[in-house]
Amino acid sequence: MTMTPPPAPIRNLEELRDRLRTFAAARDWDQFHSPKNLAMALIVEAAELVEHFQWLTEAQSAALPPEKTAAVADELADVLIYVVRLADRLDVDLFAAVSSKLARNEAKYPADRVKGSARKYTEY
Amino acid sequence: MTMTPPPAPIRNLEELRDRLRTFAAARDWDQFHSPKNLAMALIVEAAELVEHFQWLTEAQSAALPPEKTAAVADELADVLIYVVRLADRLDVDLFAAVSSKLARNEAKYPADRVKGSARKYTEY
Amino acid sequence: MTMTPPPAPIRNLEELRDRLRTFAAARDWDQFHSPKNLAMALIVEAAELVEHFQWLTEAQSAALPPEKTAAVADELADVLIYVVRLADRLDVDLFAAVSSKLARNEAKYPADRVKGSARKYTEY
Amino acid sequence: MTMTPPPAPIRNLEELRDRLRTFAAARDWDQFHSPKNLAMALIVEAAELVEHFQWLTEAQSAALPPEKTAAVADELADVLIYVVRLADRLDVDLFAAVSSKLARNEAKYPADRVKGSARKYTEY
Repeated sequence: MTMTPPPAPIRNLEELRDRLRTFAAARDWDQFHSPKNLAMALIVEAAELVEHFQWLTEAQSAALPPEKTAAVADELADVLIYVVRLADRLDVDLFAAVSSKLARNEAKYPADRVKGSARKYTEY
Repeated sequence: MTMTPPPAPIRNLEELRDRLRTFAAARDWDQFHSPKNLAMALIVEAAELVEHFQWLTEAQSAALPPEKTAAVADELADVLIYVVRLADRLDVDLFAAVSSKLARNEAKYPADRVKGSARKYTEY
Repeated sequence: MTMTPPPAPIRNLEELRDRLRTFAAARDWDQFHSPKNLAMALIVEAAELVEHFQWLTEAQSAALPPEKTAAVADELADVLIYVVRLADRLDVDLFAAVSSKLARNEAKYPADRVKGSARKYTEY
Repeated sequence: MTMTPPPAPIRNLEELRDRLRTFAAARDWDQFHSPKNLAMALIVEAAELVEHFQWLTEAQSAALPPEKTAAVADELADVLIYVVRLADRLDVDLFAAVSSKLARNEAKYPADRVKGSARKYTEY
């Protein structure tokens, strides 16, 4: 039995990216991690997330019991892992991408015009 | 015409979470953001990502022209936005979740046993 | 200007399968229709379906205005097209597959034991 | 032990629709089958299909071993079940929808102009 220290907690996306690089390299799995395949893996994990909510009402989905929240957290982790891995393989700067996206969304949906409106909201 | 300073760049997931809170609150959109609905929105964005790759070979997906990479980055941003928003609504600590997940994956797929094996890889 | 008769209406899955074969062959698109790619295309269409419902309440989703129902019908058609095309490429008999599946579901969820129970329903 | 005859094989979409109606009614599950929920269930099944292909090459996906084809057939059946169930709940005529869709696709992609062209194909 080998004594290995427990892995360090991950504190930010850069550390996550690096851990995923090491993980894939140690297993020689980069060959499977084409962007095409990673996009497929990402949506499969997204669907495992959706599966938790498919028969719940919206109200039930907002009041999950703790063990269900833990299961959902696990799926969110899987999605995040593939987002970070795919961004890394494509040399995409995720924070630049979300900054740009949010700035455009803020301009596209001016708060004073779309406030509380489901109609506006659903029509973009 | 109003002069508003450009929005600040987002540097980490906590800043992204806070910007998304402000964005939704200013538009009174929390009412639409049940976990059930956010999970649906997340998978829709994941599919827009998949769409970019569906007719490409794996090799083509790893050598995208710059404008295509930019479009993919945009979709990755959308997925990340919904991951962070959904985690926030469920009080999920994303870094705790990925730390736990990766530790389990590292134990489940010992590098020396699964190295380079597509068979092992595809059978989990 | 050529005068072509309007295409015949499709009346069953066999006719749909044959029209899709002709369509792909005439365009030399079989080369893009690997099962992997068709599965991706299928889920992208499924997501376009989901997109129509993501911000609606369940009640709203059951009372769509006619033009929205037409748009949803269009997406259902796209999903069905890829189901039939993928089954054809894999030599899968769809009616044998659904017959077998339904027989198993009927045995797995005995009506007298699961009747009206969301709990049972959500736990499979 | 009750002796029930084996369920009849399903031969067309109308029979499938009717079997699904009976199945849901007997279990009092119509209450869970809002179009919103059915769309979620459909994409979850689509993802189970995608999962079979995510780490395969396109060539491997076109040469599945028999037991894998059977598993994929099972997922195709699940997707088809939700397509038919959702169409039924929305009073959508699936064959009218696919006839209309195919007629438009045939006009949109003239065989003589798009033949064998990945570029054209990927740009719609």
